[in-house]
Amino acid sequence: MANDLKKLSDLVRYYILESTTAAGSGHPTSSLSAVELMVALLFGGRFRADLDNPDYPNNDRFILSKGHASPLFYALYAAAGRIDEDELRTLRRFGSRLEGHPTLAFPYTEAATGSLGQGLSIGVGMAMTAKYLDKLPYNTFVLLGDGGMAEGSQWEAIQLAAHYRLDNLIGIIDVNRLGQSEATMYGHDVGAIVRRVSGFDWTVLEVDGHSLDEVTAAYDQALAADRPAMIVAKTLKGKGFSIFEDAEGWHGKPLSREQMDGVIGELGEVDKSIVGELAEPGDGRPLLPEKVAPPGFDYQLGEKTATRVAYGKALVRIAPAHPEMVVLDAEVNNSTYTKYFKEAYPDRFFQMYIAEQNMVGTALGMSRRGRLPFISTFATFFSRAYDQIRMSQYSRANIKFAGSHVGVSIGEDGASQMGLADIALFRSIFNGIVVYPADAVATERLVEGLADRQEIAYIRLTRMATPVLYGNDEEFPIGGSKVLRESTDDRLTLVAAGVTLYEALAAHDELKEIGIMTRVIDLYSVKPIDWRTLGRAAVDTGMIVTVEDHFPAGGIGEAVISALAAEHPVTVHTLAVRKTPRSGSPAELLDYEEISRAAIVKKVLELRGHPGTPT
Amino acid sequence: MANDLKKLSDLVRYYILESTTAAGSGHPTSSLSAVELMVALLFGGRFRADLDNPDYPNNDRFILSKGHASPLFYALYAAAGRIDEDELRTLRRFGSRLEGHPTLAFPYTEAATGSLGQGLSIGVGMAMTAKYLDKLPYNTFVLLGDGGMAEGSQWEAIQLAAHYRLDNLIGIIDVNRLGQSEATMYGHDVGAIVRRVSGFDWTVLEVDGHSLDEVTAAYDQALAADRPAMIVAKTLKGKGFSIFEDAEGWHGKPLSREQMDGVIGELGEVDKSIVGELAEPGDGRPLLPEKVAPPGFDYQLGEKTATRVAYGKALVRIAPAHPEMVVLDAEVNNSTYTKYFKEAYPDRFFQMYIAEQNMVGTALGMSRRGRLPFISTFATFFSRAYDQIRMSQYSRANIKFAGSHVGVSIGEDGASQMGLADIALFRSIFNGIVVYPADAVATERLVEGLADRQEIAYIRLTRMATPVLYGNDEEFPIGGSKVLRESTDDRLTLVAAGVTLYEALAAHDELKEIGIMTRVIDLYSVKPIDWRTLGRAAVDTGMIVTVEDHFPAGGIGEAVISALAAEHPVTVHTLAVRKTPRSGSPAELLDYEEISRAAIVKKVLELRGHPGTPT
Repeated sequence: MANDLKKLSDLVRYYILESTTAAGSGHPTSSLSAVELMVALLFGGRFRADLDNPDYPNNDRFILSKGHASPLFYALYAAAGRIDEDELRTLRRFGSRLEGHPTLAFPYTEAATGSLGQGLSIGVGMAMTAKYLDKLPYNTFVLLGDGGMAEGSQWEAIQLAAHYRLDNLIGIIDVNRLGQSEATMYGHDVGAIVRRVSGFDWTVLEVDGHSLDEVTAAYDQALAADRPAMIVAKTLKGKGFSIFEDAEGWHGKPLSREQMDGVIGELGEVDKSIVGELAEPGDGRPLLPEKVAPPGFDYQLGEKTATRVAYGKALVRIAPAHPEMVVLDAEVNNSTYTKYFKEAYPDRFFQMYIAEQNMVGTALGMSRRGRLPFISTFATFFSRAYDQIRMSQYSRANIKFAGSHVGVSIGEDGASQMGLADIALFRSIFNGIVVYPADAVATERLVEGLADRQEIAYIRLTRMATPVLYGNDEEFPIGGSKVLRESTDDRLTLVAAGVTLYEALAAHDELKEIGIMTRVIDLYSVKPIDWRTLGRAAVDTGMIVTVEDHFPAGGIGEAVISALAAEHPVTVHTLAVRKTPRSGSPAELLDYEEISRAAIVKKVLELRGHPGTPT
Repeated sequence: MANDLKKLSDLVRYYILESTTAAGSGHPTSSLSAVELMVALLFGGRFRADLDNPDYPNNDRFILSKGHASPLFYALYAAAGRIDEDELRTLRRFGSRLEGHPTLAFPYTEAATGSLGQGLSIGVGMAMTAKYLDKLPYNTFVLLGDGGMAEGSQWEAIQLAAHYRLDNLIGIIDVNRLGQSEATMYGHDVGAIVRRVSGFDWTVLEVDGHSLDEVTAAYDQALAADRPAMIVAKTLKGKGFSIFEDAEGWHGKPLSREQMDGVIGELGEVDKSIVGELAEPGDGRPLLPEKVAPPGFDYQLGEKTATRVAYGKALVRIAPAHPEMVVLDAEVNNSTYTKYFKEAYPDRFFQMYIAEQNMVGTALGMSRRGRLPFISTFATFFSRAYDQIRMSQYSRANIKFAGSHVGVSIGEDGASQMGLADIALFRSIFNGIVVYPADAVATERLVEGLADRQEIAYIRLTRMATPVLYGNDEEFPIGGSKVLRESTDDRLTLVAAGVTLYEALAAHDELKEIGIMTRVIDLYSVKPIDWRTLGRAAVDTGMIVTVEDHFPAGGIGEAVISALAAEHPVTVHTLAVRKTPRSGSPAELLDYEEISRAAIVKKVLELRGHPGTPT
């Protein structure tokens, strides 16, 4: 392998202009600043990957955190002979695998990017996988923009990478000085960036980002470092073309065909015949133990166990069946009870500290490397990482999220700690699963079920201990529900899940005493939702009351109404958290928010009056 | 004023134990580590505030970012004679103003905290207000925990504070070594934290956090610094009591009455008769110009203007009527068109760079200091700051959020840039307002209307230019809607907003040609929602189809169904984004997602068949 890096840089520059001019939109200038940084990496022999086999486990990994530089990304693979010029011209068109920001439609994309500041966390996940799980020598490289360094998520990743001494992680900051609307915070004060990253105990290397020699030497130093390394490269946006080199007002603007014709000659002769070659990776595959069927469990009916405790136990129990499983927690493992897993499988547990964005990004990186991350924190703190969760759906992430401390029923800690919009957030995830077990048995079964699924999934966990409702053999298919009380005289259906299920059951008993029969459904699977059972209840009972320890918007009530509206228009009343939550005991707060047994009884009496009243 | 700081520290320690022991929950150990840090500040003459007048504009500001240390917070105000011991014992009880984490129920709380890593951003907002808007000499102090420094939001705030040279902002990191489940990332390696913060060009002062002399001297140095200053204090969790001082396993655990009786003697005699006094603030109130009625505007019917452009113009137009208005933008002011405001009112525009969490926290700080922030970025990037948005509702924030680039109709940039869950996120905000104008006139009027409201509000803005539908005098009350097409023969109602409204109008015309009359409603106010008009449509037409450029969960369809379900059960079909979005032209993507005029016509034909079919 003896690539001509200068010629390849010229070719890449040509492809960047050609593809964006053909597209009529996109980011040539942000691509051009990083040409030498990437050509030196991919074609300078430092990056080892088998391009015929992008999933090969020992390939080095490259993540384009500055996803808007996709024209560069695609141009590199064109220069490597993997995209022809005609396809390059489909950039950003409907149906093309060359999307405006990289997605998995393109086989060399490790993770979809485009929301700035997320790639380094994904890289952390891959580097941790390599070092601590796969135990393979592949390295992970992440190209970052200078504007994106304002994002706090970057510094979460930087902190954690130092903590875990990820000597196989190399970041490259393309300091091209110019953001979208104006200069970045530091402009070309590269020293300011060097000081900041150095403070976090990384190896930091300052280079002229357009010097192939300097850049290549920096990669060698970075690869030799015993810590994570950051290459901070001074570059020029739009480098190579006088029309926009280092000029303001050119962010996200392609050249017209005429403009391109006017400047393309500045490249000199471009040799389209050359093909860049990559270094080969060494042999290596991760070793995983054989799968072993998990043991059973044994709860007693009526025994009080918090679902968060059952979650922790379930993780330990199913671990032998899922050797690829890992558990990450944001410094609350004694609240989420992932401490059980930490104790049982310390090599597969990772303390992620109080940095939820980076936890999600890291989990995505691990998921992309074949691991099955179960990650946990207080439900409401996942909202800190919603943008990362959102983006992970575009990377076909297989991540299981467990949120504890949901609803006002957590009690005295008050509103800041209460997960009250978590169902709404996770229901918004495309093809996502949302489950909400009421008892320990349901939790055990749902954790089993989620581990077998490929989708992003969320399990909502309760702080307080709740009595076991189900026998140990009960099954809980995803998308199902349980009809717990049913009679031919049912005049109304109560739909609840989690803590409010117990309130609904108690209300059922009270109402039965005065002759009002109600159906009670445990909606343990909020998404997908059991529309058949709900539809039957609508037809049978003519009226539904939902009860949830969650805000009304996007919650269980709306999920139920939404499932019925097209086929079974029916009156649905939703009891939910409608007053600003506060400190108090769980029982006081359920009453205050009118989601307690008393509130349910009151509502049903309002709606159905005396037993003799016609419905 | 000559407070005995040692005696006050003892008293504060007593109050911390007494209140948490009475509560039976809470965080004595995390409170005890910062006693000297706070006593020296409040009672050492460095903090100037009129406690009889907590809203006095020239008071210094104190934010308890580590909100779980609320027992310390309350104990300080008890030591200042503002809470009696009986009330302290109501800590965490239902109805008490002393909530588990500080809320505005307590008059000295500047902002509700409890989600870690948010207080410094709020402090940045207050310090920016003091320095650049109020032009008053008050200082802002923020107490931070060491565990919380893992949050990226902290580093966003640290970056921006340095950028704006906030010499009136002082952070204090209580390095007590122990997190919730285990030691923090750095433990007592105070030097690691000093290096990190120093890298960001702050003045950093390392102290023994239990030495009143050292701490007091550090405040003097911090106050004298010409940059933001961070006091990094080595402390002991649980300081003062042998039972848990510097011990693991005591996070969030109060002493039982027996345990407290056993250790309280370690304090020696506590003098409950002393009252700590604070230094008085100097005179000072911000000067705001007189309010001037805004000029009108003049759009032509059919003229194509993007609502994001109209938003930028509206901000400039109404600025004279709202002297307290400020505009913040996350480095996309040429996309959100807040560049107009930046040009017209450079002193009231703040570049927040690509750091959405800090932007929201800063806006909250400004809002708490009486300003009216309009803040903007791409809709989907607000999801980066959802936790800050969520928390701001507990601080009675008056912040207006403007999200541009919504839906698949943005086109070629692809899924990463598309706001597709933004309605769901903002609908989940308690008492929040969500509006979604279709044209420039609606945008102008809604911006006017939002500026007059006190609630958190979100305005959803479209990238593409859309024709003006409404006359310049049309009014758009929050909570209203517009019935744009209506007849006595309507057999179905189309509910849409924003770009899909134009699709619905076009579908109406096509359907009319084949004899199917449809009502068309512009649901420009998604929350609150115009349930009266929707209810009338349900009764009149018997069927509703909603069309939205948004995911189904928590969006317009669910808002409509939810508004009707209790009173008007009716068949509702929801057209929404149900396939993984991708790059393409806006028209291609509206078709692909089946939310275009063609898709609406197809759906209505399926539902209502030929004109002669009975409904």
